Amino acid sequence: MQLWTLRIPTTQRVTRGVPTQSVGTINPHNPEDPMPALSTYQTPILADWVDYNGHLRDAFYLLIFSYATDAFMDRIGLACDDRDASGHSLFTLEAHINYLHEVKLDEEVEVRTQIVAHDSKRVQLYHSLYKTGGEQELAASEQMLLHVDLAAGPKAAPFSEQSLHALAALIEAQHDQPTPRYTGRVIGLPGKA
Amino acid sequence: MQLWTLRIPTTQRVTRGVPTQSVGTINPHNPEDPMPALSTYQTPILADWVDYNGHLRDAFYLLIFSYATDAFMDRIGLACDDRDASGHSLFTLEAHINYLHEVKLDEEVEVRTQIVAHDSKRVQLYHSLYKTGGEQELAASEQMLLHVDLAAGPKAAPFSEQSLHALAALIEAQHDQPTPRYTGRVIGLPGKA
Repeated sequence: MQLWTLRIPTTQRVTRGVPTQSVGTINPHNPEDPMPALSTYQTPILADWVDYNGHLRDAFYLLIFSYATDAFMDRIGLACDDRDASGHSLFTLEAHINYLHEVKLDEEVEVRTQIVAHDSKRVQLYHSLYKTGGEQELAASEQMLLHVDLAAGPKAAPFSEQSLHALAALIEAQHDQPTPRYTGRVIGLPGKA
Repeated sequence: MQLWTLRIPTTQRVTRGVPTQSVGTINPHNPEDPMPALSTYQTPILADWVDYNGHLRDAFYLLIFSYATDAFMDRIGLACDDRDASGHSLFTLEAHINYLHEVKLDEEVEVRTQIVAHDSKRVQLYHSLYKTGGEQELAASEQMLLHVDLAAGPKAAPFSEQSLHALAALIEAQHDQPTPRYTGRVIGLPGKA
């Protein structure tokens, strides 16, 4: 049987004493603009995450996206308390990440999250990293996550009705968002299969 | 201009006082067996990397692969001292990662690395995670890395003759390795495009 990496509850995050914020809010909406993206996570770039030049190391982009997934889970009824009560969680099956621009120590960044698709037990997310309030995509990650029953194995399990309703509401709120740029990616050298 | 995440020199690794090893050695070879894989990095699973259940968090699999890339760089003449001298390094353009099995606190793991392809300035790697000496693939990551001239921008630059020779020697040593399982991956729900 295959297992997958378990997500840390929000309250167990490795923040090392530096304040990070899980916002999980949809920005205020002007009816004349497209519905804004779901901002799932904000943080400064911490000293533990950068190299000797003060640039964010590749793996720590993914850590920021991982915290964003924690915050997303809160939005669909899989917050820490709920997981403890329900015995369900999300496991990461696969993640793709594109590095577009360097990010430096102490910069304030946010993750914006779109639901690409889901079925009865999987959800496909697209996380984008921006400077907080900024317009330039710094990195992008497409991910496939599996809903699991922890007590049963862990074992793949259908989403609850509550989670399915929350997913539907988020998709409806995001229906006019632009199509994510870095999805369906295959790694290969230019000009080669 | 696009920038990419800069790799930390080996000597600057965030080890938090716990000994990790960058081995970068090809295992002893019995002429009757296929040439063994290049073991690029070994480490125990550190307390900073696991969740409340003692399982390795998704982003820290990628951190272990990131250290393996540092060790790989040492093998092709891009070690810390060489980078300082030459002003060249590798930047991560894109990484795909598949999570196959959970990994627990204090387990000893190793990364085995294959070169999938390269051209004059890019190298495509396949990192696999195993328990040290084990046979079961725990996670896999296909990555595209770009050789850059740090002083010029950073800016994409051709590999040196020394690096090209080292790449050719590693490819020759690995020519009878099995084809990596998790390459050419596209994320999508089963039964959907």
